[in-house]
Amino acid sequence: MTAATYDVLGIGNAIVDILAKAEDGFLSEQGMTKGAMALIDEARAAAIYQAMGPAIEISGGSAANTIAGLADLGARAAFVGKVRNDQLGHVFSHDIRAAQVAFETHAASIGPATARCYVLVSPDGERTMNTYLGAAQDLSPADIDPAQIAASSIVYLEGYLWDPANAKEAFLKASQIAHDNKRSVALTLSDAFCVGRYRDEFLDLIRSRTVDLVFANEAELASLYQTDDFDKALAQLRNEASLAVVTRSEKGCVVVSKDKVTAVPAFPVQQVVDTTGAGDLFAAGFLFGTVRGLSHEQCGRLGALAAAEVIQHIGARPQTSLKALAKDAGLPV
Amino acid sequence: MTAATYDVLGIGNAIVDILAKAEDGFLSEQGMTKGAMALIDEARAAAIYQAMGPAIEISGGSAANTIAGLADLGARAAFVGKVRNDQLGHVFSHDIRAAQVAFETHAASIGPATARCYVLVSPDGERTMNTYLGAAQDLSPADIDPAQIAASSIVYLEGYLWDPANAKEAFLKASQIAHDNKRSVALTLSDAFCVGRYRDEFLDLIRSRTVDLVFANEAELASLYQTDDFDKALAQLRNEASLAVVTRSEKGCVVVSKDKVTAVPAFPVQQVVDTTGAGDLFAAGFLFGTVRGLSHEQCGRLGALAAAEVIQHIGARPQTSLKALAKDAGLPV
Repeated sequence: MTAATYDVLGIGNAIVDILAKAEDGFLSEQGMTKGAMALIDEARAAAIYQAMGPAIEISGGSAANTIAGLADLGARAAFVGKVRNDQLGHVFSHDIRAAQVAFETHAASIGPATARCYVLVSPDGERTMNTYLGAAQDLSPADIDPAQIAASSIVYLEGYLWDPANAKEAFLKASQIAHDNKRSVALTLSDAFCVGRYRDEFLDLIRSRTVDLVFANEAELASLYQTDDFDKALAQLRNEASLAVVTRSEKGCVVVSKDKVTAVPAFPVQQVVDTTGAGDLFAAGFLFGTVRGLSHEQCGRLGALAAAEVIQHIGARPQTSLKALAKDAGLPV
Repeated sequence: MTAATYDVLGIGNAIVDILAKAEDGFLSEQGMTKGAMALIDEARAAAIYQAMGPAIEISGGSAANTIAGLADLGARAAFVGKVRNDQLGHVFSHDIRAAQVAFETHAASIGPATARCYVLVSPDGERTMNTYLGAAQDLSPADIDPAQIAASSIVYLEGYLWDPANAKEAFLKASQIAHDNKRSVALTLSDAFCVGRYRDEFLDLIRSRTVDLVFANEAELASLYQTDDFDKALAQLRNEASLAVVTRSEKGCVVVSKDKVTAVPAFPVQQVVDTTGAGDLFAAGFLFGTVRGLSHEQCGRLGALAAAEVIQHIGARPQTSLKALAKDAGLPV
């Protein structure tokens, strides 16, 4: 195994978020499930956009947010994801490169527009997402550069990649190359409804050790094992995964492996403004600790710190230096 | 004079802001004048964008921001400005319509892309703007609907419209129609450098009473009369304009007309985050008071309140209900 060029390479849907505030009444009028991510087609995208209030555009995408957070903490980071060469594609590409992330995936010159996520932020900070996958659907195995994967210590994959058919193949190709080169593979389960769509496949990825590290929140864990009994589901995950982290919002997180269970508290937050990206940034902090060889406790604290930063403002990418925040909190970065 | 359909109709450059934080060193490296607005071509736009950090996109444009603020306060508002039918044009059009503003200007289907303003926000909240006018340059007299102008109590124009050649003609056409229909015309001088480019023409607009109400800040006033003697410049403006308002940042504003001078204090602000839109939103509050027939004192207070809201967050459009803030402050809305 040669020295890695990248600490973490993420593969995910390349998405620009279009965020607006919305009262809960709007969500129910639109038939949306508060807190969930729904896949929408172009006609529905147009209808939602027409109905929603004045918005702001910020680069998003779950794995892309994680990778941007990792770069902000000082990790060497790369991202693979598909945009079109349109204005929003330029926005996505600019923002991730400006965050010091290597991003070389070829932009599509034909086909659907760059993916957009219409994010409705409720007064309590909860976010409800509606994703038009567009060009992200066309991520394919050809977009995976074996040399780049082989040169990355950790390959980080989002469960949402199971939605576009070709991306799933890209995911599996990357995972295979990573393991062939003695690298690690991490997966976030992304969303409870996403787990509902692909439960058996996700369980298979975990059981077959196609993934070495699993990120889930409580709802995703409950969906994975089809039980609301948290302790029971956690025990199952601990039994099946090499290493897993379950995030529990203000209750912090639990890191589980065969030999130990580590509960880590959340960071105090003054005001929750927008929870978009909370899980993504938690993963950024945890993965940063992992590549630095820190303890599960410290990895969890870094995750909690990054999540706390991102939920105190609009948008899913850090706006304050996570590295500086971590130093202030006495965490090793 | 028939009853008006709109309280205020604004005509301005239809622009999407691309905002990023920047240290002062970046501004000097890029040869930018802190706090000013510079016009840039497409090549310079590409170079600035490549060099600047991760950004967010928010609809902007000086007069458009004012009109969005007016609608938020409860005024019947309309906007005229030119976008292209590209993704950023859709963003601009969506946001202004979602703010309850009538916006019917035909989007260009050929020619340059929708205008963008690359806004660098300094740690002290000051903003430095670089505008690529793009499609906004093609606003022409044909885009002015005489019936819509005739049906608007106040036509509000931005000095920046003097930059695109055809827009100047559209401005004069609108002003003529407004006065023919016994409506009022208001003008913001926009920017000290803009005043430097068009000093004689702006003075002529004021002296010829082509405009009835003038908004300026201290720097614009100093540029207009080429003097740093504030009192002297203010006296000249008072002598030449029907009604004028000079904003003075944390010192509040001064409203001057032939028969009186009214100084109005600023609203207290917890933390200045981004001054983009401060003058635009001041104008929104002042114009709202004007259409409601309030005193100069109350108009100035409404302006100060709206400006205080917009400088406490990123972006130049209100994020909190200005109507609710005004009610809380005991102002009549």
